[in-house]
Amino acid sequence: MEARTDVELILIGNELLRGDRRDSHLEYAGRRLLEMGVRLGHAHVVGDNQKRIAELIRERGEKTSVLVVTGGLGPTHDDITREAVAEGLGVPLEFEEEQWTAIQNMFTKYGWRVSESNRRQAFFPKGATPIVNERGTAPGFSITKNECLVVVLPGPPREFQAMFDKDVLPMISHRFKRPPLIEQTLRTTGIGESKLTPIIEPLLERYDQFTIASLPHVAGVDLLVRAKPGVGEPGELEKTVKLLEGELRRTLGTKVYATGDVRLEAVIGERLAEKGETIAVAESLTGGLLGKRLTDISGSSRYVLADVVAYSNDSKLGFLGVRKTTLVEHGAVSEEVCREMAEGIRAKTGSTYGLATTGIAGPTGGTDEKPVGLCFYGLSWRDGSDMRKRVFPGTREDVRARVVWASLFMLYEKLC
Amino acid sequence: MEARTDVELILIGNELLRGDRRDSHLEYAGRRLLEMGVRLGHAHVVGDNQKRIAELIRERGEKTSVLVVTGGLGPTHDDITREAVAEGLGVPLEFEEEQWTAIQNMFTKYGWRVSESNRRQAFFPKGATPIVNERGTAPGFSITKNECLVVVLPGPPREFQAMFDKDVLPMISHRFKRPPLIEQTLRTTGIGESKLTPIIEPLLERYDQFTIASLPHVAGVDLLVRAKPGVGEPGELEKTVKLLEGELRRTLGTKVYATGDVRLEAVIGERLAEKGETIAVAESLTGGLLGKRLTDISGSSRYVLADVVAYSNDSKLGFLGVRKTTLVEHGAVSEEVCREMAEGIRAKTGSTYGLATTGIAGPTGGTDEKPVGLCFYGLSWRDGSDMRKRVFPGTREDVRARVVWASLFMLYEKLC
Repeated sequence: MEARTDVELILIGNELLRGDRRDSHLEYAGRRLLEMGVRLGHAHVVGDNQKRIAELIRERGEKTSVLVVTGGLGPTHDDITREAVAEGLGVPLEFEEEQWTAIQNMFTKYGWRVSESNRRQAFFPKGATPIVNERGTAPGFSITKNECLVVVLPGPPREFQAMFDKDVLPMISHRFKRPPLIEQTLRTTGIGESKLTPIIEPLLERYDQFTIASLPHVAGVDLLVRAKPGVGEPGELEKTVKLLEGELRRTLGTKVYATGDVRLEAVIGERLAEKGETIAVAESLTGGLLGKRLTDISGSSRYVLADVVAYSNDSKLGFLGVRKTTLVEHGAVSEEVCREMAEGIRAKTGSTYGLATTGIAGPTGGTDEKPVGLCFYGLSWRDGSDMRKRVFPGTREDVRARVVWASLFMLYEKLC
Repeated sequence: MEARTDVELILIGNELLRGDRRDSHLEYAGRRLLEMGVRLGHAHVVGDNQKRIAELIRERGEKTSVLVVTGGLGPTHDDITREAVAEGLGVPLEFEEEQWTAIQNMFTKYGWRVSESNRRQAFFPKGATPIVNERGTAPGFSITKNECLVVVLPGPPREFQAMFDKDVLPMISHRFKRPPLIEQTLRTTGIGESKLTPIIEPLLERYDQFTIASLPHVAGVDLLVRAKPGVGEPGELEKTVKLLEGELRRTLGTKVYATGDVRLEAVIGERLAEKGETIAVAESLTGGLLGKRLTDISGSSRYVLADVVAYSNDSKLGFLGVRKTTLVEHGAVSEEVCREMAEGIRAKTGSTYGLATTGIAGPTGGTDEKPVGLCFYGLSWRDGSDMRKRVFPGTREDVRARVVWASLFMLYEKLC
């Protein structure tokens, strides 16, 4: 007989199969399980069809140790997960008076009117243990049958995630007792996957307890360094991953801008705050996105002074002090105007650095001489400035995202 | 025997089960299929495991008419989809000289070095028809076996989407010959799901050929009006959906801000451009997000003059002409400062409208008197202004997104 998978996930909802909503549970659950050394073996997406769900639960219940089911616990007639699970496990549904009281209390707490249809949410498969939902009205439940732990949770992500973390992960951790994953993510930018491969491969020969997955993003590659399951003692592996990280860092230098899920703008913020320096931004094509990224970080008001989105020519003159002759001679999308924007915002705000972008995001507005995707971006500081020119490919959204990344990376390198 | 489902999707990749990446194919394919009246019946996510993939293909190939498989067509040793499909269908892999030439040409075109490992991508299950990949190096293929059309596509979304649209949808359309879905999405904001239900329910009794799904988002609810499959003649349904739309619009008024996938900022832009009016923005806690949203729209330079993110107090004084006494007396997060920001940006730019936000995004920086989530936002125009106060719940990101939505909706209502 084939060994059971650790965990499988069943996502229920017509809206997922119709593309009305993008699922987030698979990513969330897969990630959380991995961190505790447990593998998600399969995931299944199925519509609001009682017979099919029941069949899937029966079938997968024999192939996996833990089955996490989500969606379809609401009060409407489409919500048939509790019936399907009971059918799949071959047990009846039973009304739980105590749970009905808890559900009514939840409604009262939120100031909502409880309706008769909500009574359905107080039915549970016989033998199930309810799981409290602190963020919504539908309780979840767990039940063990034929050596498979079946956990059923509501679909809304806020509710699912809270219940998964608080109740489901401890159950799973207790069941498997695995050592947690030894992992380090190195976030790089300014170097492509093809140039990373010849750096990584020889390292993997020496560090053969590890795998390195490279995940390319819009403007960088994340390197996921992970210990292979069961290859060594956790304390030893922790030390080894640090050595491996050190080697990668020595080779890649400032190309590694962060570890874990730390964002580039957070690293920039930390360095600015440490040095007591400040930044002000002058944007054109990026329309506020660069400022938005910098101020995504809590506490960014310590070092972000201002961001002027000078979309019109008049505002470039008025707010930033760009000279009319520069605009006329070179046009708004030019290195010269970009430099005057960066210098202008620095002068107006008294910031340590001025960062500017100008360009043509498209899809309209390009010419032969200045095509869609043409961008100038650059940095101004007390004794100098550095302006760069690039033609970025892709959609309007891509072009804007790429020039924002490039500008942030430029600022980051200056701060290194 | 149970009827076959229309289409099923098999997503291949350890990275999906580990939560390293969020899948987008399910949403994309489900949506596209639905538009042509075809249903996605199931989706399956499985790791890079040849035996399991082969088993899944064998099993589902008997239960569905079309099986779309994606991922694992690259040149590395983890990419075992072609082997697994051949095994699942019980046919050998064959080397296609012509495809190898095409792959090499693709590499030359991109200026990449072709390696011996790429030869693997020229192997196809016997009897398969290759599908050209114009955006990458891995070709796809299709093959029919036991009445099931199996289509295999590479995983990168840009490649998958282009090939799915260009090659796979026509094959599927030809196979099913279904009438396209009659559908209208009405996008609403400023009214909750619980208030929409009593409006929708009586309509559904009269328009019983239709369903209306409500999809709540961060600051609005989309209503998806859809004809039930096989309930009537397309021309007639098209007329009926218009009547139903008309009734919903009469009841909901300006709460319906758009149809289809049109965004609120696009509707705002259209109205501003029509009237020859302009907007300038003054932001604080939203840090550029409001400007970013407005300038997401191509051609927004016609009506967006400028956006000043006045994060520091000095920049509120300098760029926006907020009075120092107002700042000192009421603090930066106050209705008075918000009004002066909106009026200031309008005065400085000469725009028709000035839109401003100020508040505490959190998670730090809140006090008893001014808690995290407290926001002021408002609009200034030639003969008046309107400022609003709200305490928005959620994370830093939530608070910022919500106040941006609320500000945009305010501007939209002013333009109605």
